[in-house]
Amino acid sequence: MQELLEYRSKDIPYSRVLSSMCTIPHPIAIEAHNHFIETNLGDPGIFRGTKELECKLISMLGELLNNEKAAGYICSGGTEANIQGIRAARNIKAIKNSNIVIPKSAHFSFEKIGDILCVEIRRAKLDEEYKVDITAVEGLIDENTVAIVGIAGTTELGQIDPIDELSKLAIEKNIMLHVDAAFGGLVIPFMDNQYPFDFKLDGVSSITIDPHKMGMATIPSGGILFRDKSYLRALEVETPYLTVKAQYTLTGTRPGTGVASAYAVLKTLGFEGMKKIVKTCLKNTKVIVEEMEALGFEAVIEPIMNVVCFKCEEAERIKEELYKMRWVISTIREPKAIRFVIMPHVNEEVIKNFISDFRKIV
Amino acid sequence: MQELLEYRSKDIPYSRVLSSMCTIPHPIAIEAHNHFIETNLGDPGIFRGTKELECKLISMLGELLNNEKAAGYICSGGTEANIQGIRAARNIKAIKNSNIVIPKSAHFSFEKIGDILCVEIRRAKLDEEYKVDITAVEGLIDENTVAIVGIAGTTELGQIDPIDELSKLAIEKNIMLHVDAAFGGLVIPFMDNQYPFDFKLDGVSSITIDPHKMGMATIPSGGILFRDKSYLRALEVETPYLTVKAQYTLTGTRPGTGVASAYAVLKTLGFEGMKKIVKTCLKNTKVIVEEMEALGFEAVIEPIMNVVCFKCEEAERIKEELYKMRWVISTIREPKAIRFVIMPHVNEEVIKNFISDFRKIV
Repeated sequence: MQELLEYRSKDIPYSRVLSSMCTIPHPIAIEAHNHFIETNLGDPGIFRGTKELECKLISMLGELLNNEKAAGYICSGGTEANIQGIRAARNIKAIKNSNIVIPKSAHFSFEKIGDILCVEIRRAKLDEEYKVDITAVEGLIDENTVAIVGIAGTTELGQIDPIDELSKLAIEKNIMLHVDAAFGGLVIPFMDNQYPFDFKLDGVSSITIDPHKMGMATIPSGGILFRDKSYLRALEVETPYLTVKAQYTLTGTRPGTGVASAYAVLKTLGFEGMKKIVKTCLKNTKVIVEEMEALGFEAVIEPIMNVVCFKCEEAERIKEELYKMRWVISTIREPKAIRFVIMPHVNEEVIKNFISDFRKIV
Repeated sequence: MQELLEYRSKDIPYSRVLSSMCTIPHPIAIEAHNHFIETNLGDPGIFRGTKELECKLISMLGELLNNEKAAGYICSGGTEANIQGIRAARNIKAIKNSNIVIPKSAHFSFEKIGDILCVEIRRAKLDEEYKVDITAVEGLIDENTVAIVGIAGTTELGQIDPIDELSKLAIEKNIMLHVDAAFGGLVIPFMDNQYPFDFKLDGVSSITIDPHKMGMATIPSGGILFRDKSYLRALEVETPYLTVKAQYTLTGTRPGTGVASAYAVLKTLGFEGMKKIVKTCLKNTKVIVEEMEALGFEAVIEPIMNVVCFKCEEAERIKEELYKMRWVISTIREPKAIRFVIMPHVNEEVIKNFISDFRKIV
C-alpha cells in the first residue's frame, strides 16, 4: 500500500488542474460509490436493485432533458455514449458506406468513432462565433448520411451549436440528430440563459450526458439517452448465459458505482443545489476573465459556460512552463489560445494561486 | 443514502451467486481502489503516478504471459479488450469486407464486436471436447481474414482451445491471433497442469486478461495486451487538448481504480498467493462435481478450470426455481446443461447451502 501511495503522490492534485472536464467527486458521491463497489450491472438479474436504481437515474436525467420516455444507460463515458448514439443511427439506417456530419468543433473522439464504426466523418465549418454553420452541414448531407451531430458545450470553447436549427434539418432530411452534451448536459439546464438543446426539440434522437463531468459523480459515469427505447433494439445482441436475454450496452461487465454516485449527487443537491454550483462556476469564470483581461489577454468568445479560451501566440510555451510549476492548463490551435475549464474544484483560492504564478511567466 | 441502501439490499449477494465470472473484490483491492477514486487515466499528464503504476501492472501481466515487451492498457473489461484486439488486426490488414474466424464457443460479445467493427464473424465448429476444430478454422480462412481467435477458458465450459495449433496456423497464414483469456488469463498460469496459451507462442499477437474476474480487482479492470507497442499505433487518434498527443484507448476518461486494485492484489498475493486461491477454487469445483454426481448428474466435460456444466434437460426450469429461492446459476444450450462458476466467493459453506437447496428441487 505504501508503494501505491507513492505512485499516487506523483499525480497532480485537482487544485492545480485548470484543464480537465472531470473534478473531485462530491463527498456524497464517494459515500454512495463505496456501498456499490461490488456491483456489476452487466448481470442485472443479480444486481436487480442496482438496475432499478439505474432506471430511476435514467428517468431523472430524461426529465431534466425534457423527455420522460427517454431510454438509455450509464456507461464508461462520453466516447462510449457517442459511439452508441452513432451506432444506433448507422444500424437503423443500414446504408452501405454511411457517413455522419459533425461540427469541426466536435471532440477528437469522433475520429475514433469513425474508425471503430466504419462511418465516414464529415466536418462542417463553424461560423464566426464557433457554432456549426447550418448551411455547411446541409451541404455535406447526402443520401448516405445517417446522422448529424450537434455539440451542447464544445470541449474547446464551451460553445453551444444551434441545436434547434439542426433539429429542423434532421426532421427535414429524415436522419437522426445526436447531441453531444457530455459536458453541457449538466450545465445548461441550470443556467439563467436558456439554450434549446434537448429532447424538447423533436429532431433530437439521442443525447450524451456525463455525470462524471459536471455531475460530480465518480468515474466511470457517462450517460447515453435515446428518445425512446426503440433505439436500444438497434444495439442489442443475445446473451445466452446471463439473467437477461439481450444486451444493448457496449461493455458487458460494468460497475454500478457510477449509477449510485450520480444518483446520490443529483438527489441530494436537487435542481436548486446544482444551480448553485453551476452559478459559482460561472462566477469564477468571470473572475478569471477579469484577471486575464487585466493582464492584456482577450477571450476568444465571451464564455457561454464555465470553459474559456484566451488568444495567445505563445500558448504552447506557457502551458509547458506552467506544467513545470505543476499547473495544468490546456491549449487550442485555432485560434492559438490557452484554455481553462472552471470546474467546481477551481475555486477562488485556486484562481488566486494560479494567477499569481501565471503572472510570473507572462 | 437510506434510499440507496434499500436499492442495494435488493441485489442478490455473491454468497448466492454461482453463475458469475466476477467475485467479491479482495479487501486489499478495495483499500487500493479508495486511494485512487479521483484518478482519470484519460489524462495521464495529470495522473502521471497512476499512469506509471499502469505501466508497471502491464509489465507484470506481460511477464505472467511470458512477454516482457507486451504493451497495452487496463480497460473497461473483456468486451473492450476484444474489440481493441480485433480492431488492431482489422486496421493493420486494412482489407475491405474483412472477416475473423472464432470458435463457436466464443463469448456472445463477439457478435457485438462484429456489428461494431463491421467485421464478418465466422464461427468454427468444435471438436468432441468442445475445443475449436483446427481444420474447421483453416477452412473458414480466406484472403479477407484478418485474424483468428482462440479462447483460453471458454465462458460456458472453461475449456482451452489448442492455442499452439492456432498459433502455427496464424503464422502460416500471416494473420493475427487474438486470445481471449479474459477469465483464464489469471487461472491457467497458476494451475498445476500447463496449457500453452500466451505470448510464448510466436503466433499470438494479443491477449485479453481481466483482473476484475479471477484477479479479484474492482470493476472495471479489464486488460488488453499486445505482443509489442507497434500494435497500439493501429488504434491511435490525435488528442489536441490533453497532456499527451495521442490516445490508443477506446474510452477517453477512465478510472485508475482498476489499475490500483489489480496491482495491489497481484503484488500482495504474489504468484504463490494466486496459486493458492486458484487451487482452492479447483478443489471446490471437485467438491461440486462429487455432489452433483452423487445426485446423478454428469459433467459435460471433466472440468479443466473452475467452470463446470452438468447435462440436464430441465436446466431452464431448475434455474428459474433456484432464482425464486434467491440462488443464481446459469445454463447452456448445447448440450442443455446447468453451469457453475466456482469463484473465490463460492466456498465450502456456499456449496453446502446450495446443494442442500438444490436437492429440494431435483
